[in-house]
Amino acid sequence: MKLYERPGFPNPARIHIVLAAKGLADRVENVSVDLIGAEHKQPAYRSRNPLAVLPALELDDGTVLAECTAITEYLDNLDGKPLLTGRTAREKGQIHMMQRRAESELLDAVGHYFHHATSGLGADLQAHKSPEWGGRKEWGEREGRRAVEGMRYFDAVLRTQPYVAGDTFSMADITVFAGLMFAGAAGLAMPDDLDALKAWQDRVSALPAVAQRGSQSFVAEDLKRLGF
Amino acid sequence: MKLYERPGFPNPARIHIVLAAKGLADRVENVSVDLIGAEHKQPAYRSRNPLAVLPALELDDGTVLAECTAITEYLDNLDGKPLLTGRTAREKGQIHMMQRRAESELLDAVGHYFHHATSGLGADLQAHKSPEWGGRKEWGEREGRRAVEGMRYFDAVLRTQPYVAGDTFSMADITVFAGLMFAGAAGLAMPDDLDALKAWQDRVSALPAVAQRGSQSFVAEDLKRLGF
Repeated sequence: MKLYERPGFPNPARIHIVLAAKGLADRVENVSVDLIGAEHKQPAYRSRNPLAVLPALELDDGTVLAECTAITEYLDNLDGKPLLTGRTAREKGQIHMMQRRAESELLDAVGHYFHHATSGLGADLQAHKSPEWGGRKEWGEREGRRAVEGMRYFDAVLRTQPYVAGDTFSMADITVFAGLMFAGAAGLAMPDDLDALKAWQDRVSALPAVAQRGSQSFVAEDLKRLGF
Repeated sequence: MKLYERPGFPNPARIHIVLAAKGLADRVENVSVDLIGAEHKQPAYRSRNPLAVLPALELDDGTVLAECTAITEYLDNLDGKPLLTGRTAREKGQIHMMQRRAESELLDAVGHYFHHATSGLGADLQAHKSPEWGGRKEWGEREGRRAVEGMRYFDAVLRTQPYVAGDTFSMADITVFAGLMFAGAAGLAMPDDLDALKAWQDRVSALPAVAQRGSQSFVAEDLKRLGF
């Protein structure tokens, strides 16, 4: 299998954590796509994923799976022993509910803030954005506020249970973790009073599958190109 | 189980189709929530679903599942014989990929258009929206254009395979179907040249689980309150 990704970026990081948790990292060849150079907007990548987002997993027969939840469902169920997506109907329901909330209320909101209210990934990528949409920055700023509200929601959840979807670590934890990693890189700080979320972040950072792959942020080469 | 819903609304319709497909409609008590009166924004409903969206499924022990993908995973796996969410790892991956695309590229985009670029569900609900976000209507109109592009994407998919995620009917078909139903009600017409999408819509409309519950649009009482 080939994983089209970019080291240090939040959505690819989710899949690296899944691969590590499932012991599958050795079965995947990583193909780095130059997001800052807008390589994912070019025809070669779009022929694999018409929505032009990373990551995408290409199976050995050429089938391409995109969208992190989908890639995670595939990898987690390959051996018939799901660890991250739930075993019972109830677990599947609770994990998918929190997975969707982790995306809509945190990770995707941070992404909208980063790409629309800041200079994002720079000039090459900006050129692919609709010029006609005048309220873009204001919307991006609103999304940043929504992301911080999302942190507050997950803090409240983690005051009542050890992991995002209940008693065990799941893909929803991975998504919140990547959301916080992205928020930090985008300049959205976690409010000081979110003790449960901070304690959970420390615990998750120390899990072997996360410590091994997940805590890296944007690589030095990319940060330099972005002017940091 | 109790389903908090509103007859004729697109996201609740998705769950009614799932219940019909699984033969579970008799096991669920439907509780109608007055979306036009903003009942879902009040504390009583928020105590069940803090994100204040419909539908939500309350299990007999009081556990609440929200988000359509999560509710569908729960209902589809209750009997251990999934029909709509995939049996193999590959099916799960492909169905979840298309489910996410059906939401992000069509159903959610229509929702953003309806709530932000039109008068949406009326004055009571508007009162719950952030007044400070000035670019809201422009963003809503952009989302409407994105929804029509989404129709074009699914038309291209359906030129190569009979259903949205491959050879069999799945939850991704239900989501695209609800997206088109919502688009029609919101005034976003399907372009005339999308023959494959139109033929698929006709075929899906005739499936027993869909014909039984899915083709109803907003009920007369709600339309009257909205001034139609």
